[in-house]
Amino acid sequence: MQPMFDRIALIGIGLIGSSIARDIRKLGLAREIVISTRSQHTLTRAEELGLGDRYTTSAAQAVENADLVIVSVPVGASESVAVQMAPALKPGAIVTDVGSTKASVIAQMAPHMPDDVHFIPGHPLAGTEKSGPDAGFSGLFKGRWCIFTPLPETPAEPLARLRAFWEALGSKVDEMDPQHHDKVLAIVSHLPHIIAYNIVGTADDLETVTESEVIKYSASGFRDFTRLAASDPTMWRDVCLHNKDAILEMLARFSEDLASLQRAIRWGEGDKLFELFTRTRAIRRSIVEAGQDVDVPDFGRHALEEKK
Amino acid sequence: MQPMFDRIALIGIGLIGSSIARDIRKLGLAREIVISTRSQHTLTRAEELGLGDRYTTSAAQAVENADLVIVSVPVGASESVAVQMAPALKPGAIVTDVGSTKASVIAQMAPHMPDDVHFIPGHPLAGTEKSGPDAGFSGLFKGRWCIFTPLPETPAEPLARLRAFWEALGSKVDEMDPQHHDKVLAIVSHLPHIIAYNIVGTADDLETVTESEVIKYSASGFRDFTRLAASDPTMWRDVCLHNKDAILEMLARFSEDLASLQRAIRWGEGDKLFELFTRTRAIRRSIVEAGQDVDVPDFGRHALEEKK
Repeated sequence: MQPMFDRIALIGIGLIGSSIARDIRKLGLAREIVISTRSQHTLTRAEELGLGDRYTTSAAQAVENADLVIVSVPVGASESVAVQMAPALKPGAIVTDVGSTKASVIAQMAPHMPDDVHFIPGHPLAGTEKSGPDAGFSGLFKGRWCIFTPLPETPAEPLARLRAFWEALGSKVDEMDPQHHDKVLAIVSHLPHIIAYNIVGTADDLETVTESEVIKYSASGFRDFTRLAASDPTMWRDVCLHNKDAILEMLARFSEDLASLQRAIRWGEGDKLFELFTRTRAIRRSIVEAGQDVDVPDFGRHALEEKK
Repeated sequence: MQPMFDRIALIGIGLIGSSIARDIRKLGLAREIVISTRSQHTLTRAEELGLGDRYTTSAAQAVENADLVIVSVPVGASESVAVQMAPALKPGAIVTDVGSTKASVIAQMAPHMPDDVHFIPGHPLAGTEKSGPDAGFSGLFKGRWCIFTPLPETPAEPLARLRAFWEALGSKVDEMDPQHHDKVLAIVSHLPHIIAYNIVGTADDLETVTESEVIKYSASGFRDFTRLAASDPTMWRDVCLHNKDAILEMLARFSEDLASLQRAIRWGEGDKLFELFTRTRAIRRSIVEAGQDVDVPDFGRHALEEKK
C-alpha cells in the first residue's frame, strides 16, 4: 500500500511529537520520517529510540521536501519555528501544529507561511502528565478529538488529507473557529490545569500542615489534582501567556462562583451547597455516558493498587 | 479462631458502612453483624445484599449487646444517632465513627455517651465517588490510613482493640488531636472536593461554551475534577457545615494564591508561572514515591479505555 505521505517532518519530539512518530511508523503512513528539535540532547534520545529516519537540529533542513510538517513545540516557540522553516518549505506542503491555543499560534505562524503552502492549525486533545520523547506511545490519539481551526482560504483537498491522517491515528476530527476553540479549551483544559497547579501550591505553602502530611493523606482527594499539576511547566507557562484573555475570563467566573460558595459555607446555607453538589454529580454521569471517562470508581486505580 | 468481637452494630450502611460489613463477614471478625439505617428502603437493600445477620431501623435496638458500634452516617446526623442509641449501649462497648470531621462529631456525640462506654472517634481515609450500600466492596480500606482522634480519658485497651480491628481490614492507623485532623483534612480532602464542585459548576453555567462541548472535550483536564464532584451531596454538605473554620481558612489561602497567579497571567510573568509549575510537579513525584498514587500516566485510565 502507498503511504499517505512521502516525507513527514516532525518539528519537536516531546510527548505529542514522539507519539505521532510512533504511530506513523506503526501504521506506515510515511515513506520517511524526519525529526527535528532544538535540543541536541533530546534529538539524540529520539535517535536512540529509533523514532525517525533522519535527525537534525535545523527546522529548515527538516522540512525540505516534506509533504506534511507537524509542529509540536510549546506554543510560545511557534513564531520562531515558523520563521526558521518558512524559506525551506516545499510548495504544496501541508503545515500543521498541535498547540493548545489557536488564535496565538495563527498570529505567530500565518504571517510567515508562503502562499503556496497549506497551513492548517490543529490541536489533538490528548496527552498525559508526562513529557519528553520517552513519554510518547503509539495509540495516544485513539478515540480522542483533534480540533482543526482552518483559515478561510484553505482549500478542501489538503484539509481532507490532514483529516484522513488524524483519523488514521484513531482520532475524531472537529472544526471550529480559533476564538471559540480558545474559549472551549480555557474551560475544559486550561482552567483545570491552573486550578490544579494552584491548589498544589497552596498545600505546599501551609505552615499548620506539613508537606509530609499532605503527601501521606493525599488519597482522600488531593492526589486527583496532582496529576494535572505534574504536567510540563514550559508548555503550561506558554498556554497561560498565549490564551490570556479566555483564561482570565474563565478565572473570573470561577472566582466569583467560589466566593459565593465560600459565603454559603460561612453562613451555613446547606440547601445551596446540596443543590450545587447534586448538579455537578449529573455532569460526571454525562461524561461517563459520553465515553469520555472510565466507568469505574476512583478512575480504576483500585485494580492497579491491588497489584502492588 | 475466636472472632474479634461477638456482636458488631453498624449504624449507617452506605459506601463505608457496607464495605466494613463485607470485610467483617469475609474476615470473620464478628459472630454477628447487626445493621441499622434510618431509611427502610436502604435497609431492605442491605438485607437483599446479605450484608448482615439482623436488620432494624432502630439504632437503639441495633446497639443492644453490641461490643463494637460503628457509626457511618453523614456527620450532621451524628448527634441524633448518639441520642437514639445512648440508653441502649452495653457497658464496656466501644463506639466509633467514620466521619470526615472530628471536632464537630466529638461535640455532637461525646456529651451523650454513657461513662461506661469507650467512644473513640475515627476516620478511615477511604472511599470512592460512589455512594450507597451497593457501592461498597471488600478491601476498600486496604493500604489506607485510618485516623483516630481519641479523647484524653480513653484507656489503652479499647484503643488497642479498635486499632487491631482496622489493621485487620488492612488499614494503617494514626492518632492525632481532632483540631489538627480537621486542618489536615481541610487541605487534603475538603478543599479539593469544594474546588472540584466549584469548577464543575462554573463550567455548567457558561453561556459561551455549551454543556455538550464541556462533556465532549472533558478528557483534556476537566474530567479529572468530575470524579470528586460526583461524590455524595449529603455527605459533602455536612462536611462543609461541620468543618467550617478550617475550610474557610484553606479557602482564603487558596483564593489569595489564585489571585496572585491570575495577576502573573495578566502581566505575563512567565518566570513566576514556570517556578510554580515546576514546584508542583515535584509534589506529584513524592506522592507516587510514597505509594499514595499509581505510577502510570493518566491514572492508568488508558489501559481501561483500550478495553472499550
